[in-house]
Amino acid sequence: MILSALLTSVGINLGLCFLFFTLYSVLRKQPWNSAVYAPRQLAKQRRKSQNGGGDEEEDDFFNFDMLLPSAGWVRRAWQVSEDELLCRSGLDAVVFIRIFVFSSRVFAIGGAIGIFVLLPVNYLGNQLSIDFYDLPNKNLETFSISNVNDGSNWLWVHFSAAYIFTGVVCYLLYYEYNHISLRRIASFHSSPPHPRHYTIVVRGIPSSGGRSFSETVQAFLTDNHPSTYLSHMVVHRTSKIRSLIKDAEKLYRTLARVKSQSSQQINKRDRLLGLFRGRDTDVSHYEQKLEDLERNVRTEQHSLTGELPNTSVEVPAAFVSFKSRFGAAVALHMQQGVDPTEWLTEEAPEPRDIHWSSFSSSFMKRWISRIVVVVACVALTILFLIPVVLVQGLANLEQLETWFPFLKGILDLTIVSQIVTGYLPSLILQLFLYLVPPVMLMLSSMEGYLSSSSTEKSACTKVLWFTIWNIFFANVLSGSAFYQVNIFLEPKNIPKILAEAVPGQATFFISYVVTSGWTKLSSEISQLTSLLWSYVTGVFSSNDDEEIDVPKLPYHSEIPRILFFGLLGTTYFFLAPLILPFLLIYFCIGYITFRNQLLNVYEPKYETNGRFWPIVHGSTIFSLILMHVIAIGIFGLKKLPLASTLTVPLPILTLLFNEYCRRRFEPLFQYYPTESIVKKDKEDQNRPNMAEFYEKLVTAYRDPALLPVQYARNSSSLSSPLLNSQV
Amino acid sequence: MILSALLTSVGINLGLCFLFFTLYSVLRKQPWNSAVYAPRQLAKQRRKSQNGGGDEEEDDFFNFDMLLPSAGWVRRAWQVSEDELLCRSGLDAVVFIRIFVFSSRVFAIGGAIGIFVLLPVNYLGNQLSIDFYDLPNKNLETFSISNVNDGSNWLWVHFSAAYIFTGVVCYLLYYEYNHISLRRIASFHSSPPHPRHYTIVVRGIPSSGGRSFSETVQAFLTDNHPSTYLSHMVVHRTSKIRSLIKDAEKLYRTLARVKSQSSQQINKRDRLLGLFRGRDTDVSHYEQKLEDLERNVRTEQHSLTGELPNTSVEVPAAFVSFKSRFGAAVALHMQQGVDPTEWLTEEAPEPRDIHWSSFSSSFMKRWISRIVVVVACVALTILFLIPVVLVQGLANLEQLETWFPFLKGILDLTIVSQIVTGYLPSLILQLFLYLVPPVMLMLSSMEGYLSSSSTEKSACTKVLWFTIWNIFFANVLSGSAFYQVNIFLEPKNIPKILAEAVPGQATFFISYVVTSGWTKLSSEISQLTSLLWSYVTGVFSSNDDEEIDVPKLPYHSEIPRILFFGLLGTTYFFLAPLILPFLLIYFCIGYITFRNQLLNVYEPKYETNGRFWPIVHGSTIFSLILMHVIAIGIFGLKKLPLASTLTVPLPILTLLFNEYCRRRFEPLFQYYPTESIVKKDKEDQNRPNMAEFYEKLVTAYRDPALLPVQYARNSSSLSSPLLNSQV
Repeated sequence: MILSALLTSVGINLGLCFLFFTLYSVLRKQPWNSAVYAPRQLAKQRRKSQNGGGDEEEDDFFNFDMLLPSAGWVRRAWQVSEDELLCRSGLDAVVFIRIFVFSSRVFAIGGAIGIFVLLPVNYLGNQLSIDFYDLPNKNLETFSISNVNDGSNWLWVHFSAAYIFTGVVCYLLYYEYNHISLRRIASFHSSPPHPRHYTIVVRGIPSSGGRSFSETVQAFLTDNHPSTYLSHMVVHRTSKIRSLIKDAEKLYRTLARVKSQSSQQINKRDRLLGLFRGRDTDVSHYEQKLEDLERNVRTEQHSLTGELPNTSVEVPAAFVSFKSRFGAAVALHMQQGVDPTEWLTEEAPEPRDIHWSSFSSSFMKRWISRIVVVVACVALTILFLIPVVLVQGLANLEQLETWFPFLKGILDLTIVSQIVTGYLPSLILQLFLYLVPPVMLMLSSMEGYLSSSSTEKSACTKVLWFTIWNIFFANVLSGSAFYQVNIFLEPKNIPKILAEAVPGQATFFISYVVTSGWTKLSSEISQLTSLLWSYVTGVFSSNDDEEIDVPKLPYHSEIPRILFFGLLGTTYFFLAPLILPFLLIYFCIGYITFRNQLLNVYEPKYETNGRFWPIVHGSTIFSLILMHVIAIGIFGLKKLPLASTLTVPLPILTLLFNEYCRRRFEPLFQYYPTESIVKKDKEDQNRPNMAEFYEKLVTAYRDPALLPVQYARNSSSLSSPLLNSQV
Repeated sequence: MILSALLTSVGINLGLCFLFFTLYSVLRKQPWNSAVYAPRQLAKQRRKSQNGGGDEEEDDFFNFDMLLPSAGWVRRAWQVSEDELLCRSGLDAVVFIRIFVFSSRVFAIGGAIGIFVLLPVNYLGNQLSIDFYDLPNKNLETFSISNVNDGSNWLWVHFSAAYIFTGVVCYLLYYEYNHISLRRIASFHSSPPHPRHYTIVVRGIPSSGGRSFSETVQAFLTDNHPSTYLSHMVVHRTSKIRSLIKDAEKLYRTLARVKSQSSQQINKRDRLLGLFRGRDTDVSHYEQKLEDLERNVRTEQHSLTGELPNTSVEVPAAFVSFKSRFGAAVALHMQQGVDPTEWLTEEAPEPRDIHWSSFSSSFMKRWISRIVVVVACVALTILFLIPVVLVQGLANLEQLETWFPFLKGILDLTIVSQIVTGYLPSLILQLFLYLVPPVMLMLSSMEGYLSSSSTEKSACTKVLWFTIWNIFFANVLSGSAFYQVNIFLEPKNIPKILAEAVPGQATFFISYVVTSGWTKLSSEISQLTSLLWSYVTGVFSSNDDEEIDVPKLPYHSEIPRILFFGLLGTTYFFLAPLILPFLLIYFCIGYITFRNQLLNVYEPKYETNGRFWPIVHGSTIFSLILMHVIAIGIFGLKKLPLASTLTVPLPILTLLFNEYCRRRFEPLFQYYPTESIVKKDKEDQNRPNMAEFYEKLVTAYRDPALLPVQYARNSSSLSSPLLNSQV
């Protein structure tokens, strides 16, 4: 690729970005788009108005300003302080934004070194011996390390840059880890009493002849934690009730739609064609069905929680609540029973964060399914490209002509055939790639985590490795999948192979950043799919009272993407520094974009309190080590063996630094320290409404499937059902 | 090696063993040898007699029976039950003996399969095509898998044997792990209140301006563990006092020796040559010096513990005692401070087991020294053979003649030259090998463990890996050390390389078992070095009142040796089953020998409560995996690729089994479960002498260097000093 081609591509993409951002600034001001661009405020307003707050804030009138693009939202997104973001979107959102802050800092410093020091050095070399002056037609390779002469002492500049950059990244990593761990502790200190801090999950309750699990738990805890034990709630097998409730909910929604349509028709006095009577019978039919369903649900619920507890539906797991955070923490940290596979304790997730269905599995089953998932995940990651290549091979021009003979005429046109052959393979790859995060999430949920947040965290790691392997290594090594695995069985050769292959892909990755990275941000801000979807659904239903579905930020697919760009920047920092400014732009725009989205669009559904950060840290360390390995190889190839040898301490020092951070910070991301817990407990002793809190605590972890249902009577008022629908 | 040569070697070694065992049975009956063969009883008697129990049990008279060899000790060693052994030598001794029980069982079953199934199959093959009938001149290879024809279906017998053997070993491993973990819990349940269960070590106490560490600890614990905190004892830098006390002790011993000699001289009325007056002045000179030293010690002690605590000599570590085991366990399990590198909690070792000198190091220093030790240890393990080979090269015949020209005449004799060239290299290797356990122990102690037992456990693992690498792999691969490392960088080729190399060394390892293994047992039982040493020292000092130094079993050198024989047996089980009977004999004799030694010779100095077993388990799993890897290679070489492929699940299943055991049992070897702790605490509530115990608890962890010293006044009575000399 030559420089002018790159600049053209950058120009086009920059233009597209600008267009989308302008479009966004206009579209977001249209009130009918607020369900797409500001669902959080809308949902809040709805809730307020439902609670009788009135609609005084509704300003539906036309204004000329609404058609003018403006940058006010950028200012607003920029001005919001981290504390405000924390307060409005939780610590996870802050951590997410800190990835951009951290990356921007890294690549601002790295970019300065790269552009002002490394780039001139590379450009002044003449290994590739291309004409010096014709800048626009320069091959981009001229700006990479490949252009430095073999054995040249200028390579020591790269060597020093690698050391300095590693030092800077490590310092910033330490700073961020420290910052976020302090935030985590601080947010714990400032939180009001929350059931999750007083509760633990106990699994693997041993069955003792004749007694129900509930009795066993009670006996064990009054024996071993007499002074702190408060209450417990054994989990039941509620899959049957859940499916009944799901049916009821669906029916309820249908009923609500039917009713609203008929009432609108009344309002409009549109009594044509006698359609109305049919609707009425529809409504009563649905109502009858709903009542039947509800009766079933109640019967089932009663059989679970009735006076005679039915042990066959009890799961050997329970939520155990304690009188203090300290009591819960003590039970959490210590091995309870003599058999370590029994009485397993875990942190209780937030009630809204629980995966109720994963309670049924036993210790062995869970363990085996975890192994199976790991194997499946590794296989998927390594072998992913094989089906893709196969499908790409199937979807070539001739094959398409055989399958769809009627397309023959069109496909024979040169421009169409060029598009198909040029674009189809990449489209297929993209389609397959879009499937990966949901598949990984599914695999993670099969591992039997108790909470959605842990599932997502696990999926995040999986997607990250998948991305690194299938985008970085597959492009760099570009052999068959099996060949790639083979390389890693001969660890000695890795630096050499990488050093040979990685610099060649620099131009590909530069354009990857510009196209995939920047485009993703514009599509993120403009939310085109949601917008189109809202128009489509809006045409068919114009129900203002319908529940607004505020989305949550899919961390498991977003974080790996950002981290992958970080990996590209770190790896290519000293190989081809030209990539760095484009990355810096990506991170800066991303910072603004996602701050805006977090404030307006995404709502946290649960809170891990910053537990995603260790993934970011680990990924950055991996990127550094990868850079070092490539550096060792490159200096070898460039006939500067001394530099190659002197680079060896760098990965070792980095790993030691990582180990230190792991000891220094990781424990804080697992549990809260005694000091903080005791302090909070002491503060609460003087809190006036603690008695009330304890009362709530006892029932906080009741399975929502066991809560009383009441659709039928409720359906007339058309407000949302009384049920926490987390089924 | 041919069969008759092996049988000769076996015959000679069996004869030697028999001779040594007979010798032992005679020597042990001689009362003057009891310091070597029964120091435990002797020390017990001495203690009794010092406490006024009298010498009524002394039976120093001659008896003709004493010259007759007898097998009574075998019967006695055999009859002692495991419970009695537990009571007399602790759980560690039981675990040590269980290694022999476990190995005997494994190789009894493995031997039966090997000798009655595999050996005939091997013998009937004709790959090596040697004459069928001349049994005594048979090459031993005929009995190994090498003799089975390539591609023969008989190899499926070996394949099944590998699966069956693995199953048997895993079952026995599970059984033993379960047995020992139950023993561990049971011994905790039956133990009286012990300070170590009520105490934890806190390290990394943060320094807060102006306050001493003692005040900081007090404040922190009364804040965070108000209901359970009892007392604490900050550790001081006592290296100076320790060296002073060491000097004083040395002086005290010298003084005691001088006094005893002079008093003997008085008794014998041997007033020749006026030597006596000189002795008298000697005594008073020493006494004066001792008193001076003691005054120094007291001054130093006072400056540490005086009214004005001197913060500069305080170490940021303390022993914290709690009112209950549960309180201590809670503080132990939870992260205390907000900074995870501060307020680090650890189990307190037994007071007699503490390494007082390792308290001084900080978190960072300890962490770095641990890394340095690991690196040093790996380097030593991998590079050990290089200096050995160098020294062996230097110490050849011509070199010796150049260095010691006067030996020329002797060295020129054929028999001497044969011995030197044949025996010297192996002698040098042996000498170097003898140095390894102490060196590893030293390395482990540099890691900064707080107790001798953890140091020893860590050294045990190090010695084990060292042995496996330098005896097994070095012999099998027999290339340069660097070449060996190189192999492991290409993991794909490992099975093939091992399969080619390992069977060839079968005869070497059979003779290794017979010579090194059996001989070690005879030298263990006859204790020749101690016996000779006791004779030598006995000639120079005949002081009956001298403290008897009861040795402890050096687990860190003995366990790896036994485990290595287990590894040999497992690896060669299906390659050359001829090794199995010899191993079985080794383990059976070892069982009797060590039971006898544990009852009569070795005394436990501290108790890890069975924590050595996980090492045994891990080593056995490693042996199994090694066997599987070799099997995969062998079946490939023998042109039975299907069997090779079908063996692949075996190591995977074994690793899964290991993982299951790790989860099922390992936690029990780290901490005691809440259930047991609470039960013990409840039992103790009704114990009458708890108040007394608490009083003792407060001072249980006082540094022995700070105990009052009193040699000078005491030296006249010549009994042992009042000091716990754990310096």
